[in-house]
Amino acid sequence: MRLALGVRYNGQAYDGWQSQPSGRTVQDKLEGALGRFADQPISTLCAGRTDAGVHALMQVVHFDTSIEREPFSWVRGTNRYLPDDIAVQWAQPVPDRFHCRASALTRRYLYVLSQSPVRPSLDAGRVGWSIHPLDGDAMRAAAAMLLGRHDFSSFRASACQALSPIKDLRRIEITRRGDTDRCRWHFEFEADAFLHHMIRNIMGCLVRVGHGKAPPEWMQEVLEARSRLVAAPTFSPNGLYFLGPLYEAGWGLPPEATLQAGGAAYDGPP
Amino acid sequence: MRLALGVRYNGQAYDGWQSQPSGRTVQDKLEGALGRFADQPISTLCAGRTDAGVHALMQVVHFDTSIEREPFSWVRGTNRYLPDDIAVQWAQPVPDRFHCRASALTRRYLYVLSQSPVRPSLDAGRVGWSIHPLDGDAMRAAAAMLLGRHDFSSFRASACQALSPIKDLRRIEITRRGDTDRCRWHFEFEADAFLHHMIRNIMGCLVRVGHGKAPPEWMQEVLEARSRLVAAPTFSPNGLYFLGPLYEAGWGLPPEATLQAGGAAYDGPP
Repeated sequence: MRLALGVRYNGQAYDGWQSQPSGRTVQDKLEGALGRFADQPISTLCAGRTDAGVHALMQVVHFDTSIEREPFSWVRGTNRYLPDDIAVQWAQPVPDRFHCRASALTRRYLYVLSQSPVRPSLDAGRVGWSIHPLDGDAMRAAAAMLLGRHDFSSFRASACQALSPIKDLRRIEITRRGDTDRCRWHFEFEADAFLHHMIRNIMGCLVRVGHGKAPPEWMQEVLEARSRLVAAPTFSPNGLYFLGPLYEAGWGLPPEATLQAGGAAYDGPP
Repeated sequence: MRLALGVRYNGQAYDGWQSQPSGRTVQDKLEGALGRFADQPISTLCAGRTDAGVHALMQVVHFDTSIEREPFSWVRGTNRYLPDDIAVQWAQPVPDRFHCRASALTRRYLYVLSQSPVRPSLDAGRVGWSIHPLDGDAMRAAAAMLLGRHDFSSFRASACQALSPIKDLRRIEITRRGDTDRCRWHFEFEADAFLHHMIRNIMGCLVRVGHGKAPPEWMQEVLEARSRLVAAPTFSPNGLYFLGPLYEAGWGLPPEATLQAGGAAYDGPP
């Protein structure tokens, strides 16, 4: 039997999603807890590997098991063995042809950036930071140049394992919260899939434009160069949240994971 | 010369505000950083001591020093020596008769509670938790019975050092964010001053009423008993935030610390 899970976590304490010899990854913690609850080894696949320090509102994983339990027993039972900063949100039996990565129609990320003369404190590790004011219109003009189906090699980490650098970037929404010199910026990204470091590399370029150090048109040059050498440095992972993938309604997943439901149940800034 | 500071912190890693031999308190970290910047020992007083695990959007402290620097140099210089989860927000020279505790006209706190069948994870340590749904109208009716000038001995910790248990509770505002079974509740409190554990003890009673385990009128009985024995257990510190004190405009403090400015610049849930 195949089971899908929605998993939320604070990535601050972990070396990213992907299992590593250190054992200090979200996948290691999740598989350890699932194994203890099921009393048998369980291997998971995920919809989007997150980097060290990146958070998730709804990572989606799937795995196969012979154990039969009520879906919410998997939630409650697994959470008992997980650290405080990771929790399964839902569990749902799915057909064997469901694949959390291959079946995802679209993926959404949020970057939260604090603009302030003072560095983050209460939210340290949970927001990116810009000490200088940002120009929203300039950043929106630059972001618009990235929309659509492109070769995103300029924003791709050298370690990226994706088969193709061509992705369909469907939405970048930039909104400001608060109207003083101390405010927050939300950057929402949606694409069929993302390359390794793609959002953090785009963020580095958007912030450069937002600071007036490059004109919006520079983003077009970076995109067309198809070379990591021309882009800005990779931005901090601290403010990055995987909001989750969306799937066809036919799989029977919860509304927040289903495309037709009109998006994720995501209420307000983390 | 007397200086006032606004300080923000995440209380998760600390044994509360008040200096202790362990050195693991916010006051110890702040005085250590101020001392390194000023190159002389500095002792601070604060507007409201927070418990272990309690956060602050704007703690206010004051101290006397012979060192003369631009106000923002104190902010930048002190933050350089503070841990990631504590940061000075502003510094302002004040007259010698200003006293951060005695001059405060009113104090405000926020309690953030997650209502969900699943425990907090991304926000672990930053929100309280109720696994059962809460009845907002019942909690509001119970809260209304506490408003005004009363003897709050029923909500006072035995270790409380306040001279009098009589406080003027001016406002409790209870709002719900989100309309599914997974939502957030915000409880805002305002009083001339609070007793030790007063808000966490009131929270315990409000949640008991919200769960339907006691009627709203029970709050009146608890208040009138003037005994800690009848109240509910002290609620978790995790969701408690000191929003800060407010002072008369004449002191020249920033708008978020000044009563006439119409309250604190507090934008959205932490």
